[in-house]
Amino acid sequence: MFESAELGHSVAGPAYEAEEPALRAALLDAQYDLLELGQFAVIVLINGIDGAGKGETVNLLNEWMDPRHIETCAFDAPTADESEYPAMWRFWRSLPPHGKIGVLFNNWYHQPIVERVERTSRRAELERRLDEIRRFEAMLVRENVLLVKFWFHLSKAAQKRRFRTLEKDPGTRWRVTRRDWRDHALYDRYRDVAAQALRSTSSGDAPWLIVDGSDANFRALFVGRALLEALRGRLQAARRKWVPRRTAAPLPPAVDTVNLIDSLRRQDMGREEYDELLGRHQGRLALLTRQPAFRRRSLVLVFEGMDAAGKGGAIRRISAALDARQYRIVPIAAPTEEERAQPYLWRFWRHAPRRGKVVMFDRSWYGRVLVERVEGYCSEADWMRAYAEINDFEDDLVGAGAVVVKFWLAVGKDEQLARFKAREAEPHKRFKMTADDWRNRERWDDYVRAVCDMVDRTSTADAPWTLVEADDKQYARIKILRTICERLEAALR
Amino acid sequence: MFESAELGHSVAGPAYEAEEPALRAALLDAQYDLLELGQFAVIVLINGIDGAGKGETVNLLNEWMDPRHIETCAFDAPTADESEYPAMWRFWRSLPPHGKIGVLFNNWYHQPIVERVERTSRRAELERRLDEIRRFEAMLVRENVLLVKFWFHLSKAAQKRRFRTLEKDPGTRWRVTRRDWRDHALYDRYRDVAAQALRSTSSGDAPWLIVDGSDANFRALFVGRALLEALRGRLQAARRKWVPRRTAAPLPPAVDTVNLIDSLRRQDMGREEYDELLGRHQGRLALLTRQPAFRRRSLVLVFEGMDAAGKGGAIRRISAALDARQYRIVPIAAPTEEERAQPYLWRFWRHAPRRGKVVMFDRSWYGRVLVERVEGYCSEADWMRAYAEINDFEDDLVGAGAVVVKFWLAVGKDEQLARFKAREAEPHKRFKMTADDWRNRERWDDYVRAVCDMVDRTSTADAPWTLVEADDKQYARIKILRTICERLEAALR
Repeated sequence: MFESAELGHSVAGPAYEAEEPALRAALLDAQYDLLELGQFAVIVLINGIDGAGKGETVNLLNEWMDPRHIETCAFDAPTADESEYPAMWRFWRSLPPHGKIGVLFNNWYHQPIVERVERTSRRAELERRLDEIRRFEAMLVRENVLLVKFWFHLSKAAQKRRFRTLEKDPGTRWRVTRRDWRDHALYDRYRDVAAQALRSTSSGDAPWLIVDGSDANFRALFVGRALLEALRGRLQAARRKWVPRRTAAPLPPAVDTVNLIDSLRRQDMGREEYDELLGRHQGRLALLTRQPAFRRRSLVLVFEGMDAAGKGGAIRRISAALDARQYRIVPIAAPTEEERAQPYLWRFWRHAPRRGKVVMFDRSWYGRVLVERVEGYCSEADWMRAYAEINDFEDDLVGAGAVVVKFWLAVGKDEQLARFKAREAEPHKRFKMTADDWRNRERWDDYVRAVCDMVDRTSTADAPWTLVEADDKQYARIKILRTICERLEAALR
Repeated sequence: MFESAELGHSVAGPAYEAEEPALRAALLDAQYDLLELGQFAVIVLINGIDGAGKGETVNLLNEWMDPRHIETCAFDAPTADESEYPAMWRFWRSLPPHGKIGVLFNNWYHQPIVERVERTSRRAELERRLDEIRRFEAMLVRENVLLVKFWFHLSKAAQKRRFRTLEKDPGTRWRVTRRDWRDHALYDRYRDVAAQALRSTSSGDAPWLIVDGSDANFRALFVGRALLEALRGRLQAARRKWVPRRTAAPLPPAVDTVNLIDSLRRQDMGREEYDELLGRHQGRLALLTRQPAFRRRSLVLVFEGMDAAGKGGAIRRISAALDARQYRIVPIAAPTEEERAQPYLWRFWRHAPRRGKVVMFDRSWYGRVLVERVEGYCSEADWMRAYAEINDFEDDLVGAGAVVVKFWLAVGKDEQLARFKAREAEPHKRFKMTADDWRNRERWDDYVRAVCDMVDRTSTADAPWTLVEADDKQYARIKILRTICERLEAALR
């Protein structure tokens, strides 16, 4: 892995000075093209051995290009507040928007490697996290992020020399800490763990670039050229951009008409039974979310369903049982400007719950495989990969202690029509109907197909779908409340 | 203050049930009108005595209205991460956008009152914080926020009865903690401090409403009616809305032509002196920001100046001296959609630095009293009050340890013309000129007037303006670097 980087590359002063001005002008040019195009973001990962010039390189990039459009973030161990969220949350918060360059220093690779070096995590844990990173980076690349990964290397002897040199100068002495020397003692272990991490996360789309950190001139030109080449390649590709089809073709016909949704049978519940069960399950939920054990967990509820399926009514029956300080309802509408400049899942990650909290999503990230698929708002490749990305997202939530409960409220086509008509007759403006509601109804069968695929592909052991027979609102609400209580009880046991 | 709230108001069950359905329907209606209008936000403050029904009321509001458009936030003592930012930062983060209702539970009043009750702060400190709150709320009101403040009261005897009742029922026993009983012992002190706080923060625009918390029915109707009335009044007023004038009249002529900006004389610096001083001051700045003492402080740099005054170049000479992990450059352009749905200063607050960090603003909150004033993008009342609001904002930053350094880069009209022409001749796209650049130039004298007013009104002892003679870029950069070093040295001494 590091053989070539230990050969002692170097560039003499005159050669460096001959090349540098043109390189920085070209980089600045490419940066402005990126900004002007505004269609993708660039993430530069800076990792590697201490003393190999990581910090100097970050400063150099900011000096060469326009620092106003570079967002530099450095990460250390998670802070107390950050630990209350899923592990990847803090990285999602630091993603640069389209048109900008994010320089992420000691990013998602840092903790997994350090913890393995210091033996506070096991080999299997490292592998799990590398696998998570692999899938995260694949998602970024497919979300059109240009990912450039630099690993700064230095041989053990060179690191020692470097620390000694820094210590001699009073102006740089502060930069070598006791911790650096302790890390130096662990050099061999660090190199081996790093090599494993790098090998297993170097992909065709986002390969690792190993930088020989021993000579400042070589290092600078190497990084500058590599970044320039990557930027230019992507800019060229971006100009031939994909245009989403706006009017979608109907999905190809299914082989038969047997499907999950149509196989549901209407279920009813009388007023008296409903009133009794509503009170009982609301009380049960109230107690569960107030248990001390819940403070280390969280609850993520996802509500999907055709228009007028009763999502809002169900949500209100749940929130009534909770302490208002504890929950948040996130109604998902069209993404805002800031959200559109980020990978698809960014706008959901920003609402990820901290421990002890409840988040209810009224529609959700499943929009990608439902409305966006059916209406052709994204390409088939986009919604097809979304299944796996969504599973990864929910895995992250579950890994941080979240109980993820997902409901499809299945209302029949006739029942929907009856509700639409009742709404139109209702003088109350809050039940206003839109043209969209009627239009979506025309694509009913396509939606049913999309729902079935969604359930098949994203109902996992940790985050299963619950299909709710929703023609009778009372039955539906009780089934939803009961399901949440059961899932919570199992989790808090 | 609390006399009327101790009379023992109550509403019998049948009377409550007769009124409640119409009240909640009307509230829901008003909430949808608010959402549809999308022009202002509502903040409901929930404070008061424990046991007086604060939590129940918050839940009730969420039950009565559509909880998807209510954002409930509860505050406790600041977390470790929150303490790294200015005190008001966490409240700014929780402001609801236009169209939404934010219910803020134990908000900015909570800590100042509790700390005074527990004698961990002095009387003068309480008064300072109440004063800060008064100005903050006045700003919210003028930024079109509807602020409704509820204080839930209960007599000492009633509080005791309430705790006893809760303790008897196994379903509610968990709600009474040891801390509640400790607070009960401090009841008299709490009431007195609260009365002082309420008296001094009850304004014509945002009066306190004292709620007798002893009877649930009375409490609910009181809060519901008060909120409905406030909402309806504001909705009515909002429909007669102010339209900003798009083409601004020139400012009235000044009495004479003597002014701060024109009195600056060109200053030059030769290449050799520049090179030497640049290195020296960059080194000085590098060491200052790496001092351990800086970890408890932060640095906020503001750069304003006419187009082509050299802001970007100056910023790059500063960032070159810093560790890229430590600073962030915020170029201020047109506000995003999310930013437009918030009070004016929100988009600057979101970039407030945490301790140990440097933020450089390339243009800033002063846009309100410069371009927005001159171009007529806001009303005179808006930019006139902005001076005081900006001073408050910078006070908050300084109070949290920030060193605030503000530069006006004064370039002459001829020098600007020369730079514009050089840019147009430059084949390099990054110096592209826009029609705006030429248009702003036509309003030169109005901008000079606005700058002079700005300096007069916002140059404070803690955050003074530095006027920089910027016709010679080298001189300007050195003056800026030296000023920052001097201010930092004084602060870290």
